Amino acid sequence: MTTVTTRTVEYPADGLTMIGHLALPAGVDRRPAVLIGPEGPGLNDFQRRRADALAVLGYVALAFDINGGRWFSDPQEMLAHVTPLLADPDRMRGIGHAALDVLRAEPRADLARTAAVGYGTGGAIALELGRDGVDLRAIGTVNAVTTGRPGEAARIRCPVWAGVGSEDPIMPAEQREAFAAEMQAAGVDWRLTVYGGAQHAFHHPTVGHTVLPGVAHHPQHAQRAWRDIVALLAECLPVAD
Amino acid sequence: MTTVTTRTVEYPADGLTMIGHLALPAGVDRRPAVLIGPEGPGLNDFQRRRADALAVLGYVALAFDINGGRWFSDPQEMLAHVTPLLADPDRMRGIGHAALDVLRAEPRADLARTAAVGYGTGGAIALELGRDGVDLRAIGTVNAVTTGRPGEAARIRCPVWAGVGSEDPIMPAEQREAFAAEMQAAGVDWRLTVYGGAQHAFHHPTVGHTVLPGVAHHPQHAQRAWRDIVALLAECLPVAD
Repeated sequence: MTTVTTRTVEYPADGLTMIGHLALPAGVDRRPAVLIGPEGPGLNDFQRRRADALAVLGYVALAFDINGGRWFSDPQEMLAHVTPLLADPDRMRGIGHAALDVLRAEPRADLARTAAVGYGTGGAIALELGRDGVDLRAIGTVNAVTTGRPGEAARIRCPVWAGVGSEDPIMPAEQREAFAAEMQAAGVDWRLTVYGGAQHAFHHPTVGHTVLPGVAHHPQHAQRAWRDIVALLAECLPVAD
Repeated sequence: MTTVTTRTVEYPADGLTMIGHLALPAGVDRRPAVLIGPEGPGLNDFQRRRADALAVLGYVALAFDINGGRWFSDPQEMLAHVTPLLADPDRMRGIGHAALDVLRAEPRADLARTAAVGYGTGGAIALELGRDGVDLRAIGTVNAVTTGRPGEAARIRCPVWAGVGSEDPIMPAEQREAFAAEMQAAGVDWRLTVYGGAQHAFHHPTVGHTVLPGVAHHPQHAQRAWRDIVALLAECLPVAD
C-alpha cells in the first residue's frame, strides 16, 4: 500500500502569494520530481489530485499555482488575468522558476530529474521553462501548443509531448502547425497528439460555472491525455524503485 | 513463461497466393484477435515479430500479406504494385477480408473482438476495413493517414488512432488535415499523433536496400509508435486473462 503525504505550500511569485499543493510518495529517498501547471482559472482540487496520482506512481509532484490562490469562476475575470500573462514569457518563467524553487527546498525532490507538465496556461509555463534553458527531462502539455520568442525553443533539450483537441478554437490547426514548425526548426524531439472532436479544456470535468464557447469536457480523451502524460513520464523520467 | 506458437498460412487474395504469419498465445481459449498489415514492400520478419509480440501479450495475431509472398527490395517495383492498389479501395478491402477469413478459420481467434492495425499500405487496408463497415474494436495505423471514398468513413464504429511523421513527404500536413477532416465529419472517435522530425516508414529499421527520398528510420519514434499501438489495443481490446 502506497501512502502519499500532501502539503500546502505558500511561496511568492508574480507579485502574488502562490498556494501550491505538494505531494510526496511514501519513503524517505529522493525521487524524480514533476511540476504540474493548472489551466487559466487556477489551481483546484482536480489538479491537486493529479499531483497525488503522480505521487502514488513514485514522483514528488507539485501542482503549482498561477493566480495567487484564486480560482476564477468568471471567464472574463480569468481572461483579464491570464491574457497578459500568456503574452509575457518572462512573467510565465518567473512563475515556473518559483515553483522549481519549492522543489529545490524539498529534500525528497531530485532536481536533476525533473519534468514539467501543464494544462492550458500551466502548459505554456512548462514550455517557457524549456525555452529558458531549464534542465528538464520532459515537457508535456495539454491544450497548450503555444509558441515562444524566436530562437528560444532551441534551448529545449528534452522530449516535448503536446496534446490538443481538434476542435479547440483557441488552439486551431494554424496554431498547431506553428508550434510544430517552431519545435521542428529548433531540432526539438517533439510529438503532437490531436484528439478528434475535443474542444478546449477537454481534460477538465465540467464544473458548476459559466464556460466559454469552444470549451467542453471530453471524458474519453481526458483519460487518454492523462495516460499519455503518464507514458511520457514513464519514458523520460522513470521512477527507479 | 509465455509460449507463442506461430504458423505460416497460405490463402488466396487479390489474385495472388498470400503467405501470412499467424501467432497464437499459450493456452487453448479464444482470444481477441489483431490483424497487422505490412508496408508496401511486403511482409517481412520485422512485421512477423510484431505478431509474435502481440501473441506474447495474449492476442491471436495475424501479420497478413499484401504482395503474394514477395518482398520488394526495389522501390520502383514496389510502387508499381502498390500505387494502383492504394487507389482501389475494393482491392484493399478484398485483401483485408481474406486476412479476416484466416482468423475466422482459427478456433483461438474471437472474431467478435478484433482490431486491425497496419503500417503504410497495410494501414490503408485497416482503414478500408473500417470504411467497409467491418465490426472492429480499434483501428491503428502508422504512416497511413489515407482518406477514403466520400461518406464511407461514417461506417467506422470503433476508435481510430493514426501516427505519422511530421516530415513524411508522402503524408504531408495537408494529407493529415484531410484525414482529420474526414474522420471528424464522419463522427469517428479519432486521434492523430504527429512524430516530430520523423520521415516516411520511420517505424522500420533500415534494411540493406535502396530507400526512396523522404524515407528514414527513427528508432526513438519507432519505439513510441509501437507503444502507442499497444496502448490502443490495451484500451479498446483488453485481453481478459
